Amino acid sequence: MGYTVAVVGATGAVGTQMIKMLEESTLPIDKVRLLASARSAGKTLTYKGQEIVIEETTETAFEGVDIALFSAGGGTSAKFAPYAVKAGAVVVDNTSYFRQNPDVPLVVPEVNAHAMDVHKGIIACPNCSTIQMMVALEPIRQRWGLDRIIVSTYQAVSGAGATAIQETLGQLHEAVVDGVAPKHLTAKILPSGGDKKHYPIAFNALPQIDLFTDNDYTYEEMKMTKETKKIMEDDAIKVSATCVRVPVLSGHSESVYIETIDPAPIADVKEAIANFPGAVLEDDVANQIYPQAVNAVGRRETFVGRIRKDLDAENGIHMWVVSDNLLKGAAWNSVQIAESLHERGLVRPTKELVFELK
Amino acid sequence: MGYTVAVVGATGAVGTQMIKMLEESTLPIDKVRLLASARSAGKTLTYKGQEIVIEETTETAFEGVDIALFSAGGGTSAKFAPYAVKAGAVVVDNTSYFRQNPDVPLVVPEVNAHAMDVHKGIIACPNCSTIQMMVALEPIRQRWGLDRIIVSTYQAVSGAGATAIQETLGQLHEAVVDGVAPKHLTAKILPSGGDKKHYPIAFNALPQIDLFTDNDYTYEEMKMTKETKKIMEDDAIKVSATCVRVPVLSGHSESVYIETIDPAPIADVKEAIANFPGAVLEDDVANQIYPQAVNAVGRRETFVGRIRKDLDAENGIHMWVVSDNLLKGAAWNSVQIAESLHERGLVRPTKELVFELK
Repeated sequence: MGYTVAVVGATGAVGTQMIKMLEESTLPIDKVRLLASARSAGKTLTYKGQEIVIEETTETAFEGVDIALFSAGGGTSAKFAPYAVKAGAVVVDNTSYFRQNPDVPLVVPEVNAHAMDVHKGIIACPNCSTIQMMVALEPIRQRWGLDRIIVSTYQAVSGAGATAIQETLGQLHEAVVDGVAPKHLTAKILPSGGDKKHYPIAFNALPQIDLFTDNDYTYEEMKMTKETKKIMEDDAIKVSATCVRVPVLSGHSESVYIETIDPAPIADVKEAIANFPGAVLEDDVANQIYPQAVNAVGRRETFVGRIRKDLDAENGIHMWVVSDNLLKGAAWNSVQIAESLHERGLVRPTKELVFELK
Repeated sequence: MGYTVAVVGATGAVGTQMIKMLEESTLPIDKVRLLASARSAGKTLTYKGQEIVIEETTETAFEGVDIALFSAGGGTSAKFAPYAVKAGAVVVDNTSYFRQNPDVPLVVPEVNAHAMDVHKGIIACPNCSTIQMMVALEPIRQRWGLDRIIVSTYQAVSGAGATAIQETLGQLHEAVVDGVAPKHLTAKILPSGGDKKHYPIAFNALPQIDLFTDNDYTYEEMKMTKETKKIMEDDAIKVSATCVRVPVLSGHSESVYIETIDPAPIADVKEAIANFPGAVLEDDVANQIYPQAVNAVGRRETFVGRIRKDLDAENGIHMWVVSDNLLKGAAWNSVQIAESLHERGLVRPTKELVFELK
C-alpha cells in the first residue's frame, strides 16, 4: 500500500537527483512515474535498476498520483501543478512560482515542517541558496533571535541546470586545452538563460543570478530576502544578499554575516549548530577544517564553519555555509518534504482546489 | 639623468608584471636591474626588447640603485630592504613585512600619496584585496564618512604566485581531460603554501587565504582590517573580512557592504566613484553591465558596480569591486608609487637609517 510518486522534469539536473533521492528514501513507494516535456517522452530512465518510460507532462497525466515532485521550471509548475492537485496528488514544487503564494507553505523540514499541516495541495521547496542558510541559522534564531543577515554567495553552475554544467566544462576545455583567453570563451547560457547577454563563467565570478528586479537586486537575491522571512515567519528579519555565480560545478558556498538579538557566545553557537538536524559543524581552523564545496557534493547535510565574532559589532557573527545545491538545495529537500508529509499523515487529496487551472 | 630601478623577485608572478609596468611607465629610467634568488641568477629576462641578466639579491647588490621594487616574499624584504635603503635607494615593498611599521607609509597613490612625504626609505604597497577596496571606498569616505565595512572576497589564484596558477591549470586539466573527480585532484600548494594541508581549488571555493591568526580570522582577513585603518588614517573604521580563494586565474572580486556616517544617495555615490582617479563605474544592470574578473585582467583600474542601498539599513550600501590583483593589486600600484615619489621629488637617499640591518 505505498504511494505512486511522479517526478516532473525527470531529465533535468534536479530531476535526475530526485530519482536518486527517491531510490534511497524511506517513503513507501509502489510506483515511480517520470514526466518531462514531449521532447523526452518515450525515452527511458532507470529507477532501482528498472527502466521507466518517460511520459509527457499533460493535464491528465496525474491520475492515480499521490505525490508529484515538480522541477521543470516555473511555467510547467504554473500550468500543471493545479491539475495534479485536482487529480488528488500532493505537489512538492521546486520552482519559485508558488513560493510567495499565501496558500502555499514554503518548507525546509528541519526548520518549519509544521507549516505543512495546513497545506492545500502544494508545498513549495525554497530556493537552493535560501535552504542551506536556513539550516545554518535556525538553531541560532531559536535561541538568540535574528536581527539581520548579510549574505554573499558563491553559487555553483548546476543551479542553472544541466546545460550550464555543459557550458562550463566546454569553456574550461576551450581554455585549458585550446588556450582560449578567458574573456573570449563561448557563452550562450550564463549568467541567465533568459537574459539578453551571456558571459563566460570559467575563470570568472558573475554577480548576476536570475534577472534583475526594479530595485537593482536580482530575483535570486530577493528570493533570499523574501523566503527567509516566510520560512522563519518573521517579517522583521532584515536580509540583504549579493548572489554570485562561480566556476564550481556543484556545491553552493555562502559567506553569511548575522546580528543576533541577544548576545550569542561563539562556543554556544557552534554547539547549537552541531546539534541541529541536517547541520554539520566543520570548524577547526587550527587543523584547517572548514566546509568546502567539493566535499559537500553528494551529501544531504549543510556544513557550517569559520564561525567567529565580528571584530566590532557586539552581536555580529560571521560564518561559511556550504551544501550540495542539487541535493539539500533541491532534490533532497523536496523528497524530504515528501517524507515529512508522510510522517505527518498529510499525503491525501485536497478537497477544495484553491489554485487556478490555466 | 634617469633612475636606476631594481626589481627584486623579478621572476615571480608579480615581478614579471612589474617589469611590464616599468616598460610602460612615465618614470625617467636609465637602467633596470633584475634581482632574484641565486637559483635564477644568470638567466635573462627582457626589458623593452633588451635581454637583462638576472643578478642574485645580496646585501651589496643595491649600489647605484635609486628605486628598488621588492616582491620576493616577506623574508627577502626583511633581510635586504634595509640594505637597499642604506645604499641610497628608495624601496617600494610589495610584501606584508613592513606594512604596519609606523616608520613606513602604506600607500595607494589615489588615496594617500601625501603619506609618502615623510618616508624614511621604505614605502609599503598594501595587500591586493585592500588596494582595490580603498580605490572604491575612498571617494565615499571623503564625502560621507565610513562607519563600517563588511567584505567577502572572491580572490584569484595568481595572488598565491606562479606555482598556484600552474597548480590550478593542472587540476583543471586533470578534471576536464582525465575525468578526475574534483575532491581527488592533486593539491600541493593552495590554500597556503606555508600551511600543513592542501586542498583542490578547481571547482571549489576555499575560505582560507594565508594562515589563521589567534582570533580565527586569517592573516589575509586581518590585513584588510588593519591596512584599511592605516591607509584611511582612521582607527574607528570597522572592518571585518571573509577572504575566499576561487578558481579564477587573475582578477579579484569583492562583495563589499558599507555603512556611511552621513546618508549617501546612490546616484551621488555612483558619480563620486566615476569621478575618482583609478576607479571605473560599471553599473548598468538593465544592460547587464557590472564588473567581471575576466574583463579586469590587464587593466590598471578598479571597477565598481552593483551599487545599491541595503534593503533595511538606512546608511547601508552594497557594491561589487573588481581589479587585476597582479596590476593594481601589486605591480602597478608599486610602480605607481614610484611615479608618485618622482612627481613629489621624493626619490632621494635617506640620511638616517631607521631599519634594522639583519
